[in-house]
Amino acid sequence: MSKSVFYHAGCPVCVSAEHDIVNLIGANNVEVVHIGENRGRIAEAEGKGVKSVPALVTPAGHVLHINFGASMADVKG
Amino acid sequence: MSKSVFYHAGCPVCVSAEHDIVNLIGANNVEVVHIGENRGRIAEAEGKGVKSVPALVTPAGHVLHINFGASMADVKG
Repeated sequence: MSKSVFYHAGCPVCVSAEHDIVNLIGANNVEVVHIGENRGRIAEAEGKGVKSVPALVTPAGHVLHINFGASMADVKG
Repeated sequence: MSKSVFYHAGCPVCVSAEHDIVNLIGANNVEVVHIGENRGRIAEAEGKGVKSVPALVTPAGHVLHINFGASMADVKG
């Protein structure tokens, strides 16, 4: 199975959701990307349909927006 | 590991998220509850902090609201 990608921006909601997702699907099955620090990947996330963080993009390309930490506009600042 | 519980109300957003979650964490690790049909469990979901569906409650009791299908008020009608 290819990996899911979890996009976040370091916010408290993001960190909590990250722990839950890693526990649920396993650290080996998810790449965690901090788009606040790794800003080169903001466009990648937006291209996949990520509207807010935290969000999980499944191997099938589906976007699961989990709770609500920050909009992409907030992340871009 | 105790199971997670996925609460939904049969909406298209719910069904799509259900497929994604089952694929990610395994059908054996999640109980799927349709609170539109199984209305006796609405209070249970609300008691766990579910504000909208679809939502996944982890074994640790954390609520992950996934995308947005319907508010609990909508479900209660």
